[in-house]
Amino acid sequence: MQVAERAGVSLASTSRALHGTGASRTMVDRVRAAAAELGYSPDAIGRSLRMKRTFQVAFAVADIGNPVYVEMLTAIHEVVAPHGYRVVVMSTGPTVGTTVDLVRSLGSGFVDGLIVSPLRTDDALVEAIRQAPVPVVVIGRSLEKQGIDSVSTDSAAGLGQAVAHLVEIGRRRIGFVNGPLDTTPGAARQRGFDAATSAAAFAGDHTETERADDFTVAAGLAAARRLLARDPEAGPFDAVVAANDLLAIGVIRAAGELGLSVPRDLAVTGMDDTEIGRVFQPSLTSVSLGSADRGRAAAQLVLDRVGDAVEPARQIAIGPHLVVRESTATQEKSAR
Amino acid sequence: MQVAERAGVSLASTSRALHGTGASRTMVDRVRAAAAELGYSPDAIGRSLRMKRTFQVAFAVADIGNPVYVEMLTAIHEVVAPHGYRVVVMSTGPTVGTTVDLVRSLGSGFVDGLIVSPLRTDDALVEAIRQAPVPVVVIGRSLEKQGIDSVSTDSAAGLGQAVAHLVEIGRRRIGFVNGPLDTTPGAARQRGFDAATSAAAFAGDHTETERADDFTVAAGLAAARRLLARDPEAGPFDAVVAANDLLAIGVIRAAGELGLSVPRDLAVTGMDDTEIGRVFQPSLTSVSLGSADRGRAAAQLVLDRVGDAVEPARQIAIGPHLVVRESTATQEKSAR
Repeated sequence: MQVAERAGVSLASTSRALHGTGASRTMVDRVRAAAAELGYSPDAIGRSLRMKRTFQVAFAVADIGNPVYVEMLTAIHEVVAPHGYRVVVMSTGPTVGTTVDLVRSLGSGFVDGLIVSPLRTDDALVEAIRQAPVPVVVIGRSLEKQGIDSVSTDSAAGLGQAVAHLVEIGRRRIGFVNGPLDTTPGAARQRGFDAATSAAAFAGDHTETERADDFTVAAGLAAARRLLARDPEAGPFDAVVAANDLLAIGVIRAAGELGLSVPRDLAVTGMDDTEIGRVFQPSLTSVSLGSADRGRAAAQLVLDRVGDAVEPARQIAIGPHLVVRESTATQEKSAR
Repeated sequence: MQVAERAGVSLASTSRALHGTGASRTMVDRVRAAAAELGYSPDAIGRSLRMKRTFQVAFAVADIGNPVYVEMLTAIHEVVAPHGYRVVVMSTGPTVGTTVDLVRSLGSGFVDGLIVSPLRTDDALVEAIRQAPVPVVVIGRSLEKQGIDSVSTDSAAGLGQAVAHLVEIGRRRIGFVNGPLDTTPGAARQRGFDAATSAAAFAGDHTETERADDFTVAAGLAAARRLLARDPEAGPFDAVVAANDLLAIGVIRAAGELGLSVPRDLAVTGMDDTEIGRVFQPSLTSVSLGSADRGRAAAQLVLDRVGDAVEPARQIAIGPHLVVRESTATQEKSAR
């Protein structure tokens, strides 16, 4: 291929540079210059390298049973549908291997691009994404340095907002129900909790973490039973921060089993601001991580790539914000 | 192709007969006989007609935000994964046209089979399924007469179980929050409610139906507000049957707004027996329609078809059963 020859790089590198995936700034510039010298528009070159369009984009998530992914999916659909694209969803499970296999299988040409939100990311996944035959956008931690388009949020800061709110409403003994520490969200949220509760400004008496086996209601219920069975010298917990809304619902169920009223005896916060949290009784105070915004941003990135935009990898960050509802209301709801 | 010539039918009909989809018993017998005369095993013939395997099965649903589909998905995954298959999910929305487009696009060869659970079925969809280039199994109403593999349940009978339970615990003024009547589940559940409440054995005083715009929590909340604002001469409603769990959660929220305690003032039943209903407070009495069993049955049917089993269309029925929980408990939970 002429452009590859002129740029003095391999066909695969040329393709990556034109996709912008896994290509350095230097490489992108070199390929662009070669294309310009030859009088090609980058769009036309990109298209000629590309297999037949499928007008399908895949969205791969760890657990489609988690409503946060449904909100991302809806947002992705809203962005890509006007361009004639359909979204296919794959629920990969928590292990990274399944996601690596998926990315490697993209060569069979059933989608034009992939948006993936992995619970865990390792070198094999990064490498598979860099080598992927179609554009891949990651929702999760920033992979800008690895040359991969990514949409991230700051869940550690979000955790800090939840802790600050609980302290502000007078809660002093705060438990944290986190998911597994070897996941991207689990690690970030633990960092956020530890930072918030060790800060000089922290006005709490006691904090403790209990880890759930995964990010589901059932795992949250089991972890909260263990946490609430402990008896800190400082006195019983008066608040629990949960690492997502499903875990928080498990915490509220565990509180119910012990005859504790939420929020009177135990204030509870979630994270992700999902519909189930909004309709639950009591409705859930939750840290929004902008799931719809992240879905929209990822969809736009993948559409840009499919449209052959020649750009280095981009990274978009969406900030967190706390939404206060009944589960931390300072006054009990009026008696019925 | 030799078998088609020997059987004296078109190649398309031969393919359909070997898939078993859209083929009459006579046609299947004729093609089988021709294959046997030529010394072919039906499996080998089927495979030679088939395009390259993708080892992907699609599961198309109206709304992946409804947890009933997540439970079906999990069950489908459990059946097909050991055979090396991945499940891709498509959320088609409520209109039938999107599903027709999807079925027609299967020829591009991104999946080896499709399981579809449409909210609405029309002649165009039936015809698209009969002409589909890969096996299609429908979860919904029986399409055996149309020569299509299907897995059905009897949600009308399930509705009857919910009404009978409410009458048995002494409820006499029963409202029904249904979804749209032009959907397969909406029509069946209305039939079930009308039959149960007009039966000679019905011991209630008053019944009334309110229709929600779709099968979501938000639509259930809006419909329940309208229903509970009415003032039947017989006195206020003491029970509401909802056509699925999401609508039931909307009903419980509406009851809360009016200061009504569930189940003391208003008993509420759902349908589908989903996880969200099980963890909601109060936990939801619900009619199980065997979502996992239906998913497993559909997955086995589609695997059999992909494996070239030469059989006429099959129909599998899964019966409903009521699961009683807090939302219709005859005694209030102990005070806390």
